[in-house]
Amino acid sequence: MKATKCTSLAKLHVLAGHHTFTCATPREVIGMARAGFGTDLLLANETVDDLRLAAMAAEQDHAMITVAIDSDATLHAAHHAGIRNVMIDVNVGLPRCGVAPEHAGRLADSARNTGLHVRGVMGYEGHLMMVTTHSEKLEKVEACMALLRNAANDVGGDIISAGGTGTYNMHANTGVTEIQAGSYSLMDTQYAQLGLPFAQAAFVVGTVISSSAKWAVIDVGLKSLGMDHGNPSIDGHSVWFCSDEHTTFSPNDGTPPPVGTRIRVTPAHIDPTVAKHDEAWVVNGDDIVDRWAIDLRGW
Amino acid sequence: MKATKCTSLAKLHVLAGHHTFTCATPREVIGMARAGFGTDLLLANETVDDLRLAAMAAEQDHAMITVAIDSDATLHAAHHAGIRNVMIDVNVGLPRCGVAPEHAGRLADSARNTGLHVRGVMGYEGHLMMVTTHSEKLEKVEACMALLRNAANDVGGDIISAGGTGTYNMHANTGVTEIQAGSYSLMDTQYAQLGLPFAQAAFVVGTVISSSAKWAVIDVGLKSLGMDHGNPSIDGHSVWFCSDEHTTFSPNDGTPPPVGTRIRVTPAHIDPTVAKHDEAWVVNGDDIVDRWAIDLRGW
Repeated sequence: MKATKCTSLAKLHVLAGHHTFTCATPREVIGMARAGFGTDLLLANETVDDLRLAAMAAEQDHAMITVAIDSDATLHAAHHAGIRNVMIDVNVGLPRCGVAPEHAGRLADSARNTGLHVRGVMGYEGHLMMVTTHSEKLEKVEACMALLRNAANDVGGDIISAGGTGTYNMHANTGVTEIQAGSYSLMDTQYAQLGLPFAQAAFVVGTVISSSAKWAVIDVGLKSLGMDHGNPSIDGHSVWFCSDEHTTFSPNDGTPPPVGTRIRVTPAHIDPTVAKHDEAWVVNGDDIVDRWAIDLRGW
Repeated sequence: MKATKCTSLAKLHVLAGHHTFTCATPREVIGMARAGFGTDLLLANETVDDLRLAAMAAEQDHAMITVAIDSDATLHAAHHAGIRNVMIDVNVGLPRCGVAPEHAGRLADSARNTGLHVRGVMGYEGHLMMVTTHSEKLEKVEACMALLRNAANDVGGDIISAGGTGTYNMHANTGVTEIQAGSYSLMDTQYAQLGLPFAQAAFVVGTVISSSAKWAVIDVGLKSLGMDHGNPSIDGHSVWFCSDEHTTFSPNDGTPPPVGTRIRVTPAHIDPTVAKHDEAWVVNGDDIVDRWAIDLRGW
């Protein structure tokens, strides 16, 4: 859900038979539960925020909610707030959250001792998403997942959760029972570099507001785009730079488009791009067919 | 207004005697007019959006609104929507909006022929904000402003508008009548490199959610920060990297802070950081003294 933040899009996943969702924020969990998509929601992230944990706990009578923990502090915060289900988050190589694999079993025991239900383990190999050599990536993913399987043996439970859009096809033999991929449904230019079988589905549409002999300027700027993966792309054009409310670009051949021309900008990173917009316009060619609220933004 | 997007903060400027505001979006103009701060509002940006132009025009009976134009297309869009006052936007070297200086007079004549009031010229030397050598910067700003003064001679009107936080102190002899600076009131780590006499006033506050022997992780990630100027900073610590909802960092000495510790993150670029938040908490030391809506977000 962190890439899409939209219950209207989630509904399409549900209609396609998908009933388990990974979330990065309490707001995503709570919004999905309230939208009726609470069959199995995982907060694949840590929090010690009592109010947000309690707000998630309040949804548990009509939604199955599981919260990741990686320390005694996160365990006790979840327990104190009335959370029923937890997942042990295991560090498999990305220097971020996750308990060291050798301590996962002990943390699971502590969780069970407080009455929490431990559903299994998760371990996100985020540092491997953009490895470009297939064989090297496969080998490194397997090494990370060997750590996760060992932790799973110590932890117990039914779930081994891992992966993302960049490694979704590397888990045939890793023992993983679910993949935490999300960007695939909208895509961006960074993931497009991997040659994945997913189409670019989200664009920021702008209007040319200034045009000279050498360049044109649209009213799509860095306040409407995720910039941590660099500049966006425009088909058939070269992007020069983004300002707060502008992007300057030039055509690869020919003259710049005139003022008033509509231009589709393809984001370099979809997650933070979606998070900057109130709503998405759903189109079929040039026809607008629906309007979706990006209703799970914020925290 | 593009750095702050907040009428509560604008009110402090008004109380300090400031009554003219530069805006980058129609929403900023309209929001300022409706908040009662419409003494003199400039949209220092081009638009051909009929609905947004008409919405600005509708505020003109109780607000003085001026819209930048740099082409016949933007001129006619403004006129058609009922906008009364325009400013000729002149390109002084940044490859973005702005008519070529030698055509500014002709555009002003066309505007007057349609009945528009031409208040003067603006020219943003944005490409010079981060020049680090004082004498070089002064010389380059002067060269840009010579272009703008020549255009002003052709255009007429009372206003020569230019500058930003990075060049605010370079205009003593440039003929400029107003400075379009905004970032100075909140600041960021990029502008801090210039040694300006402004204090850092805005931070994103996070909580440590995971801590290991070598690093800690807070729940402030790139979805809450403007990333186009690179990573944020944390006093006394080194930032390793930002993920969507996390920042991994380590202390410059000592052990990482424990889970639950509150950490202040200083953004690298204030404008897009502010634009990602619904509200700002105003503090005096550790006391919360007010809560401001970031009410001019969006477009």
